[in-house]
Amino acid sequence: MVDRRGKIVASAITSLDIHDLARSARTYGVRAMYVAHPVKELRDFAMSVRDRWMEGHGRQFDSLRREALERVAVVSDLDEAIASIRGLCGVPPLLVHTSARNQGGVSYQGLREELEQEGPPFLILFGTGFGLAPAVAARADRILAPILGVGDYNHLSVRAAASIILDRLRGR
Amino acid sequence: MVDRRGKIVASAITSLDIHDLARSARTYGVRAMYVAHPVKELRDFAMSVRDRWMEGHGRQFDSLRREALERVAVVSDLDEAIASIRGLCGVPPLLVHTSARNQGGVSYQGLREELEQEGPPFLILFGTGFGLAPAVAARADRILAPILGVGDYNHLSVRAAASIILDRLRGR
Repeated sequence: MVDRRGKIVASAITSLDIHDLARSARTYGVRAMYVAHPVKELRDFAMSVRDRWMEGHGRQFDSLRREALERVAVVSDLDEAIASIRGLCGVPPLLVHTSARNQGGVSYQGLREELEQEGPPFLILFGTGFGLAPAVAARADRILAPILGVGDYNHLSVRAAASIILDRLRGR
Repeated sequence: MVDRRGKIVASAITSLDIHDLARSARTYGVRAMYVAHPVKELRDFAMSVRDRWMEGHGRQFDSLRREALERVAVVSDLDEAIASIRGLCGVPPLLVHTSARNQGGVSYQGLREELEQEGPPFLILFGTGFGLAPAVAARADRILAPILGVGDYNHLSVRAAASIILDRLRGR
């Protein structure tokens, strides 16, 4: 990710990132959600948040959490996520870049139509902090148009932005 | 709110509730966001989350947070929010009920058209936990249709649901 000054950083993971994104992903029929982080301690944290609801008391207490979190995988980086998808689907995914600062890019309706066709899987990339690092954008196959509200303020949380994008791509 | 068994409870507030909802509200041009809680300690907590970015170091450090959080008001209950809106706008708001379990209800396009007319302000009600208490629904002027994903799973976080609803009502 980049921070507010544009410096490349590893941003923090919160438990609500994992819960909110997994619940939105499950609602919109996303097959797998990858949490990618280069630091082992943060990956361990992410797995503990997931497994809290997958095992023992948590599993019995709330099946709705489990149904969402069971699709969460924790990986070190983008390449590991791509390798996992290749293993699941037989082909690598098309990478979709999202950013509040994207200029132009494919429309939501355009990407929605492409998703509805029989084609390769799509991996939609979301950043925390002040967004994805430029090296990630350079690898993307599709650049998605930004979410526009009513004015020029556009500083949604990643939890909100991902939910809105999934709704625009898959909502009824 | 109600809990998983349908019992009336006061649910917890997290700092990300306030930040995420305020950022989404600001993005979609919402004039004021009310955090309503009957317990003084939780209202004090909500005010401290807001004021952290409104004063001193936080104010200078991140103007984007401030622009979102300055529209947050903390109240004890729905009646206090309605009184505040009456003070701001001169008329009471129309109350819009949201729930994943609403049957029928007004469509997003219908409510969007109503919002675009010159009319009274709208107060859109969101619940945490397992949703708004029945007494709140009974007071609503409009019941909004639920958000539908691709299947029957619908257990979005309030942060995600509110963002999606604002996008459907005000997004471009």
